[in-house]
Amino acid sequence: MTARIIDGKVIAADLRAQVAREVERVKRDHGLTPGLAVVLVGNDPASEVYVRSKHTQTQAAGMASFEHKLPADVSQDELLALIGKLNRDPAVHGILVQLPLPKGLETEVVINAIDPAKDVDGLHPHNAGRLAGGQPALAPCTPLGCIILSKTVHGSLEGMNAIVIGRSNLVGRPLVQLLLNENATVTIAHSRSRDLPALTARADLVYAAVGRPEMVKRDWIKPGATVIDVGINRIPTAEGKTKLVGDVAYAEVAEVAGAITPVPGGVGQMTVACLLVNTLRAACAIAGLPKPAV
Amino acid sequence: MTARIIDGKVIAADLRAQVAREVERVKRDHGLTPGLAVVLVGNDPASEVYVRSKHTQTQAAGMASFEHKLPADVSQDELLALIGKLNRDPAVHGILVQLPLPKGLETEVVINAIDPAKDVDGLHPHNAGRLAGGQPALAPCTPLGCIILSKTVHGSLEGMNAIVIGRSNLVGRPLVQLLLNENATVTIAHSRSRDLPALTARADLVYAAVGRPEMVKRDWIKPGATVIDVGINRIPTAEGKTKLVGDVAYAEVAEVAGAITPVPGGVGQMTVACLLVNTLRAACAIAGLPKPAV
Repeated sequence: MTARIIDGKVIAADLRAQVAREVERVKRDHGLTPGLAVVLVGNDPASEVYVRSKHTQTQAAGMASFEHKLPADVSQDELLALIGKLNRDPAVHGILVQLPLPKGLETEVVINAIDPAKDVDGLHPHNAGRLAGGQPALAPCTPLGCIILSKTVHGSLEGMNAIVIGRSNLVGRPLVQLLLNENATVTIAHSRSRDLPALTARADLVYAAVGRPEMVKRDWIKPGATVIDVGINRIPTAEGKTKLVGDVAYAEVAEVAGAITPVPGGVGQMTVACLLVNTLRAACAIAGLPKPAV
Repeated sequence: MTARIIDGKVIAADLRAQVAREVERVKRDHGLTPGLAVVLVGNDPASEVYVRSKHTQTQAAGMASFEHKLPADVSQDELLALIGKLNRDPAVHGILVQLPLPKGLETEVVINAIDPAKDVDGLHPHNAGRLAGGQPALAPCTPLGCIILSKTVHGSLEGMNAIVIGRSNLVGRPLVQLLLNENATVTIAHSRSRDLPALTARADLVYAAVGRPEMVKRDWIKPGATVIDVGINRIPTAEGKTKLVGDVAYAEVAEVAGAITPVPGGVGQMTVACLLVNTLRAACAIAGLPKPAV
């Protein structure tokens, strides 16, 4: 094992502490308490766990946390009415609708109803469009976390060759935009790409976001490269149990990479912390304050 | 000279003829006459030439053409009022505001006021966001032209390695999205990229969109690659006159490339033809008709 392990848990805790300090400052200096509203429809157990975690971390950062739980059979009109109310509520600076939504609700219509200024998940086309245009925008949390992790290894990503494997709307595509904003040279590869190992072997920065267990192998990686693993895949073990693995064959890649994120304990740790960052930024922007220090 | 010359003039004429046939069909079968409104503010001579050319080509394709000329000192409110009127006008399916706007008018506010369904220049963040998300969208005309030219050489771009040099909002960034939609593997390079010649030499498809005269040299190009030159630069000649050149050193690159666009006579020919394509597509979408055959 030669690679430095990028410890998402420690970095996320540090990020949350930075957010808490900035929340403290805007409260004290401007009387502004950033507020995050989370909307949960139905009672998917995994979603309930996420929502509880967001609630706890939001409060721990000194922000206001608003939870709205709606039954699985809520009508789309009722859900849109709630979003309209949250859009108008001056105490709410961030609105997150927990996905996936139960059947019968149109995700795109619901997301597009959120005020883009409060779209802390960065999913509204207005934010995606601003991000794609290199303008200031609320960016999705997972790619934002990838950039922050990368910058704990390299102070600047300028001029580095990056490859993003996977072109999903939630991760791959916005990550390309964030890497361009950091002045990296970016290649975006996917299931139709030819000779992925050779493409990957040219990169200083490798982002794996395909959802295929341990697909990225040791011989794909340029010695010393930084490897950020976005995948979270549950696979069966020999003992008949299951375990979580990433899109990268961690043990073998760690022997050649310069730095690598583990799974679990890497990118996954960053998502909620980045949601807090976005809520803080949204609150400052809505209040007409300068961009916060985080 | 070994490269096949990609003749933008012939290809654009063919595209306009395809549009005219589809316009004929939707008129006959659905009583729909696609209409394009062009708004020109002030009297910049170059803009007047472009607007006249758009008017002529729109009418030649059988569409309705509406020209709106406003004085350079028009107020932003008056301009926005006109856009509002065009947004509501059922005879208008495409709205193009000729850029650049005179000083005192805020381009972003004006563009964002256009109904995204009528934004045939593909500049509204809503369209940029949909494009960035891989969803159907009106795409900017110049990158659309680049894709059409490439597909006259290669029936499919799937799995090909493409490099886009330049990350402008008008060309480079949307071109990346269109290439991804074609299942190409895309690298986006720019002024901060290291070792651009070596990066370019790996590509099957090279798109130069930086605005630097004859920057891309012979030894940057993999033999047989397809080279699409988006640059239009006016440079002085030895005789004290000026001439137009692209971002590619045409004469020397043509000796190694498999196919190449000339400047002038390449990409530049495609832009207005693609505007007609977008207007036809917008008209069909607004009328609830299937996507046209072009």
